[in-house]
Amino acid sequence: MPDFTLAEIAASLGLTAAGDGDIRIAGVAEPETCPADHLALAMKPEYAEALTRGDARAAMMWDGADWQSYGLDGAILAKRPRFALSGLSATMDPGQGYSTGIHPMSDVHPEAELAPDVTVAAFSVIGRGAKIGAGSVIGPQVHIGADTEIGPGALIHAGARIGARCTIGAHFICQPNAVIGGDGFSFVTPEPSTAEKARAALGESGEATGQPWARIHSLGGVTIGDDVEVGANSTIDRGTVRDTRIGTGTKIDSLVQIGHNCIIGEHSLLCGMVGIGGSTEIGSFVVLGGQTGVSDNIRIGDNVVCGGATVVLSSIPAGRVMLGYPATKMDSQIEIFKAMRRLPRLVRDVAELRKTVSKDRKTD
Amino acid sequence: MPDFTLAEIAASLGLTAAGDGDIRIAGVAEPETCPADHLALAMKPEYAEALTRGDARAAMMWDGADWQSYGLDGAILAKRPRFALSGLSATMDPGQGYSTGIHPMSDVHPEAELAPDVTVAAFSVIGRGAKIGAGSVIGPQVHIGADTEIGPGALIHAGARIGARCTIGAHFICQPNAVIGGDGFSFVTPEPSTAEKARAALGESGEATGQPWARIHSLGGVTIGDDVEVGANSTIDRGTVRDTRIGTGTKIDSLVQIGHNCIIGEHSLLCGMVGIGGSTEIGSFVVLGGQTGVSDNIRIGDNVVCGGATVVLSSIPAGRVMLGYPATKMDSQIEIFKAMRRLPRLVRDVAELRKTVSKDRKTD
Amino acid sequence: MPDFTLAEIAASLGLTAAGDGDIRIAGVAEPETCPADHLALAMKPEYAEALTRGDARAAMMWDGADWQSYGLDGAILAKRPRFALSGLSATMDPGQGYSTGIHPMSDVHPEAELAPDVTVAAFSVIGRGAKIGAGSVIGPQVHIGADTEIGPGALIHAGARIGARCTIGAHFICQPNAVIGGDGFSFVTPEPSTAEKARAALGESGEATGQPWARIHSLGGVTIGDDVEVGANSTIDRGTVRDTRIGTGTKIDSLVQIGHNCIIGEHSLLCGMVGIGGSTEIGSFVVLGGQTGVSDNIRIGDNVVCGGATVVLSSIPAGRVMLGYPATKMDSQIEIFKAMRRLPRLVRDVAELRKTVSKDRKTD
Repeated sequence: MPDFTLAEIAASLGLTAAGDGDIRIAGVAEPETCPADHLALAMKPEYAEALTRGDARAAMMWDGADWQSYGLDGAILAKRPRFALSGLSATMDPGQGYSTGIHPMSDVHPEAELAPDVTVAAFSVIGRGAKIGAGSVIGPQVHIGADTEIGPGALIHAGARIGARCTIGAHFICQPNAVIGGDGFSFVTPEPSTAEKARAALGESGEATGQPWARIHSLGGVTIGDDVEVGANSTIDRGTVRDTRIGTGTKIDSLVQIGHNCIIGEHSLLCGMVGIGGSTEIGSFVVLGGQTGVSDNIRIGDNVVCGGATVVLSSIPAGRVMLGYPATKMDSQIEIFKAMRRLPRLVRDVAELRKTVSKDRKTD
Repeated sequence: MPDFTLAEIAASLGLTAAGDGDIRIAGVAEPETCPADHLALAMKPEYAEALTRGDARAAMMWDGADWQSYGLDGAILAKRPRFALSGLSATMDPGQGYSTGIHPMSDVHPEAELAPDVTVAAFSVIGRGAKIGAGSVIGPQVHIGADTEIGPGALIHAGARIGARCTIGAHFICQPNAVIGGDGFSFVTPEPSTAEKARAALGESGEATGQPWARIHSLGGVTIGDDVEVGANSTIDRGTVRDTRIGTGTKIDSLVQIGHNCIIGEHSLLCGMVGIGGSTEIGSFVVLGGQTGVSDNIRIGDNVVCGGATVVLSSIPAGRVMLGYPATKMDSQIEIFKAMRRLPRLVRDVAELRKTVSKDRKTD
Repeated sequence: MPDFTLAEIAASLGLTAAGDGDIRIAGVAEPETCPADHLALAMKPEYAEALTRGDARAAMMWDGADWQSYGLDGAILAKRPRFALSGLSATMDPGQGYSTGIHPMSDVHPEAELAPDVTVAAFSVIGRGAKIGAGSVIGPQVHIGADTEIGPGALIHAGARIGARCTIGAHFICQPNAVIGGDGFSFVTPEPSTAEKARAALGESGEATGQPWARIHSLGGVTIGDDVEVGANSTIDRGTVRDTRIGTGTKIDSLVQIGHNCIIGEHSLLCGMVGIGGSTEIGSFVVLGGQTGVSDNIRIGDNVVCGGATVVLSSIPAGRVMLGYPATKMDSQIEIFKAMRRLPRLVRDVAELRKTVSKDRKTD
């Protein structure tokens, strides 16, 4: 259980507590259900009304909020409360409660190099030649492959699998059951295949090819920068010859698939169920909404934003905001969506027009 | 191997066997490949013809079926055979064959509370303060986090990860490698971000923002009602302040993602690869078809049905049946799909009409 | 570290080295960053220019390439270099470095039958009656269920879960955390449900049904042919009565879902995030692009190719090349995509035409 005073919490956020800074805070809560020893989060005026129905003595509120009018004894006022919540939530996070030290029922290879304070929880495996940086926590049932390096301050949750020969920077967070360094999906036929021809012809493929697939093994690894997070059950495939690369500061949500050889830039956000085909490059500060799909072998520029379920079949220049299947500039796409709703009527209108015009011509 | 008489099986379903109730039944099978000691499933007239090609002595059939005409010695006739199959399949299920008792190579925290008959299979970890209800089976290589409570009669399959501080009701079924209680995907920039602006403007974002993302930790857990099932490799994120919630009787298929703070009602069905953005509410008796995507911060009412791959970008009132990208009432969407097929021709028709009309005006 | 001569590598591919066959090769690399002891992959003229910027002494190149002109001492020339890369990558793959033999911290049931040279790495569980073929490698933290049979030469990566009573052929490759033999998603209500009615009516469902779901247990298993690969975090559900089936030579990428009772043919490719509903049949030599969704209970013929994110709501005859939501022949779909972009303008054009025609009639 966290235990801080209101003043301590404010100080940790670089702010000052208003009112009684000595109020003890054991957690955060929504205004309506907030107990007296919790900090209520009332970060917009519309959330603040509920304060009077809960038992909060203190709240985090927006800059300039009239906190006393809600019957509080103290408050933390933040210019951008959602940003302040980041620091606050880090302070109040009780963590997952994994064991500490090297668990006797783990399997750490004698030639692995672990910094002295590293935790390896039960039933985890650390391969030969792996290196784990200072302060890292390897949760239970994790596999770290041979010769893989992980920087300091990592938090690898239960069941994550990181394959051999990967290189990961500082402060890596890996959610449960994520897979980093599975093999790329790369197969080739002795002669040009159905799919290759379809791609060339964009039309019928016709004949049965009858060719089995030969496997191209993935000889590369995965290189990940600093401050990256990978979500639960997401998968990042290893590269064919060089490493697949994820840039510093990029955050990846749950059930995301990143194909072999991809290069993802820095500080990009890939939301849940995004899928990126092999050898595609994604720029920096890109935001891909949930379920966005991106073809293989294309390029998405910096600062691109794709709305939910966008299907990207060709490259997108920097700075564009896209939506739809296929991806279209968002304002155009919204016009198209509106027009699509009227489409059945449009078909009827045109049929009627043709009749009228044709009749007019006859009567002329 | 199950071993019952036909009469015993009928009784377990609240039905009566017709014909020879003493036939011994060791399993169920399709009519064509049914051995003599199995019960053939011939639940519709079109499946019954194949009975004569197999060796079945008994079959489950529809109410009023003339079972003798297929050469059978006995039958179970059900008014709604598919519903009767539910009970039948439960009776005949041989299970996964996990070990029983607390496996010596498991890691159960001394402060965890397990009901006396709980099974914990090999290489599973039960955290400090966790509580597991009577008759629950924790399969191999499972992680149950600190202070998490699971009700009686749970069946948690291999490799499932349930994070700390979750609360789960009775008869929970968790398929392999599902993750409950991974962290929410919640990040914030010091100043308004590209995505926030795009959302506001629905248009170009333009400039490089250059802001790294600050993490909002997930302080809430996940609360799950009774009789819930979660599919293989699905993920349910913990809430930011309060718990993410899944209502009683709701069934979740494989590879489904439920974002932080979501509230899912009771007895809803979420089919494979459904993705639900953070803080969205889904009603009760809702059915979301495979690959349906739902934006964050919206609401889907009770009894809504979405067809496969529907993309829900805005709230849906109760009782609607939807399809398409973006989600549209299903009957309208089917009209739109039909009109889309004629769209290239429509473009040509309109071009021709314009020419005709413009020529007519000139000749006038 | 691999260590071969150029001549040995060429011979392993059924080719002959040109130039100095004695060059020692420790790996493969891209031309620009290739060290002197690696083989550069310069398989197309546009990649070859970079050879002079790296340190490569030897390269794999296309048939007829003038390798000496790039300053190389030797080369392997291949008619279809991408196909030759398959054999080359197999030769050079250093593997995952799992331990060998039966790890003392594994749990192999005394009644399981393992060929004498099988590897079972740490924290893996092999159930009662399971049979594992010669030369198979079971990586760490894997679960193989009771009575499951796996053919010779399997490579099962960390965290894979294979349920009870599955049958798998030779040379199976299973990527980390894949789940084979989770239960099917099959539920039924006592009376016809909202979704059944919606399917029947394709329209409004209206009333609240208020029926909880009864579970249909999956009594079948999964049968997989020879030379199949299943990607990271993919899921293949067991059948209801008979087995779900995957044909020989079929390759399945990451995060793919295959529903209960599906029958997938031979040598098909299912790319990342493909989802296939229950009881659907897919032919042989089919290629489904990333995120393609296929409804339950339909049939896709042999040699069909679907582009990325295709949504298949009804059966597709053999040989078709499809794209879009709903799936449409690719050439037609591309015409439709083009017309959709002009749709808002078309709406305006038709409105104007109607005005013109109506005015003309009045003036007539």
